[in-house]
Amino acid sequence: MAWKVTVWNEFLHEKTNQKVIEIYPQGIHRAIADGISRHGRFEVRTATLEEPEHGLTEEVLNHTDVLIWWGHRAHHQVEDAIVNRVHQRVLEGMGLIVLHSGHFSKIFKKLMGTSCDLKWREATDKERLWVVDPAHPIAEGLGQYIELPGEEMYGEHFDIPAPDELVFVSWFTGGEVFRSGCTYHRGQGKIFYFRPGHETYPTYHNDEVLKVIANAVEWAAPRRGARPVYGNHKPIEQLP
Amino acid sequence: MAWKVTVWNEFLHEKTNQKVIEIYPQGIHRAIADGISRHGRFEVRTATLEEPEHGLTEEVLNHTDVLIWWGHRAHHQVEDAIVNRVHQRVLEGMGLIVLHSGHFSKIFKKLMGTSCDLKWREATDKERLWVVDPAHPIAEGLGQYIELPGEEMYGEHFDIPAPDELVFVSWFTGGEVFRSGCTYHRGQGKIFYFRPGHETYPTYHNDEVLKVIANAVEWAAPRRGARPVYGNHKPIEQLP
Amino acid sequence: MAWKVTVWNEFLHEKTNQKVIEIYPQGIHRAIADGISRHGRFEVRTATLEEPEHGLTEEVLNHTDVLIWWGHRAHHQVEDAIVNRVHQRVLEGMGLIVLHSGHFSKIFKKLMGTSCDLKWREATDKERLWVVDPAHPIAEGLGQYIELPGEEMYGEHFDIPAPDELVFVSWFTGGEVFRSGCTYHRGQGKIFYFRPGHETYPTYHNDEVLKVIANAVEWAAPRRGARPVYGNHKPIEQLP
Amino acid sequence: MAWKVTVWNEFLHEKTNQKVIEIYPQGIHRAIADGISRHGRFEVRTATLEEPEHGLTEEVLNHTDVLIWWGHRAHHQVEDAIVNRVHQRVLEGMGLIVLHSGHFSKIFKKLMGTSCDLKWREATDKERLWVVDPAHPIAEGLGQYIELPGEEMYGEHFDIPAPDELVFVSWFTGGEVFRSGCTYHRGQGKIFYFRPGHETYPTYHNDEVLKVIANAVEWAAPRRGARPVYGNHKPIEQLP
Repeated sequence: MAWKVTVWNEFLHEKTNQKVIEIYPQGIHRAIADGISRHGRFEVRTATLEEPEHGLTEEVLNHTDVLIWWGHRAHHQVEDAIVNRVHQRVLEGMGLIVLHSGHFSKIFKKLMGTSCDLKWREATDKERLWVVDPAHPIAEGLGQYIELPGEEMYGEHFDIPAPDELVFVSWFTGGEVFRSGCTYHRGQGKIFYFRPGHETYPTYHNDEVLKVIANAVEWAAPRRGARPVYGNHKPIEQLP
Repeated sequence: MAWKVTVWNEFLHEKTNQKVIEIYPQGIHRAIADGISRHGRFEVRTATLEEPEHGLTEEVLNHTDVLIWWGHRAHHQVEDAIVNRVHQRVLEGMGLIVLHSGHFSKIFKKLMGTSCDLKWREATDKERLWVVDPAHPIAEGLGQYIELPGEEMYGEHFDIPAPDELVFVSWFTGGEVFRSGCTYHRGQGKIFYFRPGHETYPTYHNDEVLKVIANAVEWAAPRRGARPVYGNHKPIEQLP
Repeated sequence: MAWKVTVWNEFLHEKTNQKVIEIYPQGIHRAIADGISRHGRFEVRTATLEEPEHGLTEEVLNHTDVLIWWGHRAHHQVEDAIVNRVHQRVLEGMGLIVLHSGHFSKIFKKLMGTSCDLKWREATDKERLWVVDPAHPIAEGLGQYIELPGEEMYGEHFDIPAPDELVFVSWFTGGEVFRSGCTYHRGQGKIFYFRPGHETYPTYHNDEVLKVIANAVEWAAPRRGARPVYGNHKPIEQLP
Repeated sequence: MAWKVTVWNEFLHEKTNQKVIEIYPQGIHRAIADGISRHGRFEVRTATLEEPEHGLTEEVLNHTDVLIWWGHRAHHQVEDAIVNRVHQRVLEGMGLIVLHSGHFSKIFKKLMGTSCDLKWREATDKERLWVVDPAHPIAEGLGQYIELPGEEMYGEHFDIPAPDELVFVSWFTGGEVFRSGCTYHRGQGKIFYFRPGHETYPTYHNDEVLKVIANAVEWAAPRRGARPVYGNHKPIEQLP
């Protein structure tokens, strides 16, 4: 079965910043959509901020198994009604992969319940993402670490709930570390936060980064599991 | 050092429901405040819904180490501004103990990021709370389980994040189980959810229940730990 | 790809106890091998205690993706050399599913590091296994709970490490609860402990129980992940 | 109440290696014993490999609340009978703090169930231990990180069970990261693994390192919790 994936991108930097335009001429969403398709059989569509309902209509979300989220400077422009819709779909089983600066998106903060704040720096850091859970399906097909010759630094403390599973920890040249691959279950849905991907670096052309995202789609895709029933509940056992 | 504890109670049932008035003539908050004081040296104050700012002024919260929360039928009447204030204080280190029907309070749902929904039943169930983590300080001084001869039933699935630590699991006569003692770290703050305490049962007169709440205050009290700094961060290491 | 599954069974009760012979005339291992094959495409073989090397030669283990383990009264007869061989294979990535009384097997205790002790009772208990993590792939295709009309009771405290993920919690008629579906990562391997399956009940003919075991095989099967290198390690970065 | 602490040290390097003798003239155990006493009120004794029963008699262990363990080159000389005795005491509630190269001690491997292997390097690395859980009592009184100007490098993958709580992550100059502060519950006991402390560096004279160890003693000290009963268990509820 081919999972239905929707790649959501703010898609603003790629319209105004020459450096970003050169790296991602068709937008970060297209780079991710094309890139993960080399690592799995997915039905991929994209959606962006400036589309009606940000491209995330009921129709689209109801036909999305896994939603990938990239946003940065316009988190506040995402309408609360859409955020609530995505939130509801995650609790019902839709997978969600939050990338890089998406740590400050409304949907991620709503699901985490914390500030999701962190340290950051745009400089000349190298990043090395070490696999700390080699048994995890999201690390399938990788070596011991992924090396990115240039990336924005994100440093601890990262104000998130302790992840259910910690898959990657990043090292940065300037002296910081970061929990850069984190899984969560929320309701019937699964969430993966993955750190790399600042818009001024060609990170989403890196094949190992794309492999991780493709692995995460497989991991986060919904299972036909129990649909819990809530509310007033009659006793199953006969009371004496 | 005596921890500063504020017991917050909705305090509505105790004004109108004769059965509840008989059990808690001075309110659930007074029963808890008096009860935990037999198990530790605390500076306890109380606060209720109908006080100005629900009794949770900046002044009060800034002098609260641990906030205990009981609410049931008026969650929607708690103002968002106060919820945000409490949320901020938890992330800064204030402990929070959420009791029973507080699972549906705005503050708990905001911190958890999930629906916090569950099954429930008011009938003739007995509850038995088994200690599943005997190493945990919150279970100090208890036997293998706490037995409550009558309680409202709460049943799985309980839509919460997997707890950082699971301390109690409840058994109910009618055939259900429930994760009834759950710990979380959020920001610099600690949270404990504890299930028992429906208003029509004398649960907060039970000495073992009060012992658990007192233990949880000790566990959740803030530590003078690192105050993480967020935002733009200069490299610690000299870049070559 | 069809996963290679080896079902290991002590295979003693089925030779001497008339009741068990009636339920499992060809042994518990055959019931499981046949049963899971209705829920997935697996290459299944079996192995038993009295075979040379308990049927777990290097050759067999090297061609096993997931090992299923049922043992009860002869844990001490399993040779340490074979236990160490299985342990090594788990750390290298082989999945391991430990069933019921296997909680006291040498291999499970070695992997857990605790006593793995518990309460038990053979009586007239009913068991109900509640799904507490509906997002988990091991719960795929189930309803809200599995009901077993008769089973041996296992009760808390179960002396295991806190599971990485808790999938099922059991309710028993007599008043006990049990963490009955527990996942662990150890090295590159994945482990699932699943409680039901006392030899005097037809539990491994129950289709939902078999579905869970088949799901667990899929979940525990090895990934072609990083092969960590250990020992003396040269600096990756040029030291100044 | 003053917790009873026993500091166990292999105490071999300090007898033969001139560099180590200069740093720890009375042994690593004395440096730790004296150092933590500046951060709390403890009754500290020491024990070493070459004493009868390695200094860990029944009498000593029965009067030990928390055992601190430093070993390196003579793990194999620790008798299995003593390891089993310590293991049993941990499961019964004694706290255990394992330092640095103690990751390869028999007691730590027995409690973890994994190889506990890792990467290492003696070179010119600097270590920076970042606090990733600022709510944790073990991080009390620290800043955002501890910096050690020279230390042996330990790098991921560290083959341990995912810690119950991850308190510190280390950064090393040469390009590696490490989960350097890890908590576990095992039975009624608590375990803390803390990475720093190679014998050729003055790490146990560092006041922040000593503060962490003292905090860990407070955290790991036994609680008078439930003493679970195991084995055949009569039904609590009347069966119909």
